Amino acid sequence: MKTVSYQPIGIIHSPWNKQGDVPIQPVMSHGTEGTVELLPEFKDGLLDLEGFSHVVLLYHLHLSDGFSLQTIPQFDHNLRGVFATRSPRRPNPIGLSIVRLDRIQNTILYVSNIDIIDETPLLDIKSHIPSVSRQRNVRIGWLADIDK
Amino acid sequence: MKTVSYQPIGIIHSPWNKQGDVPIQPVMSHGTEGTVELLPEFKDGLLDLEGFSHVVLLYHLHLSDGFSLQTIPQFDHNLRGVFATRSPRRPNPIGLSIVRLDRIQNTILYVSNIDIIDETPLLDIKSHIPSVSRQRNVRIGWLADIDK
Repeated sequence: MKTVSYQPIGIIHSPWNKQGDVPIQPVMSHGTEGTVELLPEFKDGLLDLEGFSHVVLLYHLHLSDGFSLQTIPQFDHNLRGVFATRSPRRPNPIGLSIVRLDRIQNTILYVSNIDIIDETPLLDIKSHIPSVSRQRNVRIGWLADIDK
Repeated sequence: MKTVSYQPIGIIHSPWNKQGDVPIQPVMSHGTEGTVELLPEFKDGLLDLEGFSHVVLLYHLHLSDGFSLQTIPQFDHNLRGVFATRSPRRPNPIGLSIVRLDRIQNTILYVSNIDIIDETPLLDIKSHIPSVSRQRNVRIGWLADIDK
């Protein structure tokens, strides 16, 4: 299959400087503020985004070096398949976070609850629509034992 | 900023053959079945995924040709910034869907509620964790008027 190539559209800034610092559960990043600096040429794409309280950020996990198909997640004692985890060491290191959008000033998005490392290249911004991610009869597999 | 390149890890099959056929709201794809065919070399990454009822699929919107920074969404009458929409004509055409995981057989994931066009290249699979996407005090901007 053909390789796909993307050009980052901006850069994410946060207080997290090292991979080990970033909270692995978003709840632990509650309140942490950061900024998403969109490249000026994409400014028009922000029209009406400020009406949304939360946005989905897709980004390149640029510090991730290679991948492991199985990994022992933090807070766990068993090997899990990488697709059943949020490990950054994935075949295609694309990260996904939902952050709170506090305000937009020109091409800077001020966000909070950020669990992304500083200087991360931004690939896409999508408005967060709860009805899209709200599912019925949800099971969360191995995580159910950890969440207790 | 440096271009990032990804190698698709599989291919998505669905009954949707043309871009115009794909439901633009996931609710309209309710019950639609499809398969996610992971390349055999990534099989070990599926360990324990079957415990999750839903998975997040990230994929390359391969039929999207160029992008528009502003667009009039279906069911709407106003121009909106692309980042405030789910339009496939985005600067980096990465699609995101949450689908129901019915079962896994070898490296084939049988899924339902699929809103993805047939033959779409798969970039990543992540387990869907409701507590990650559940946010408080959510506003959905221009969509609030459409959803009524």
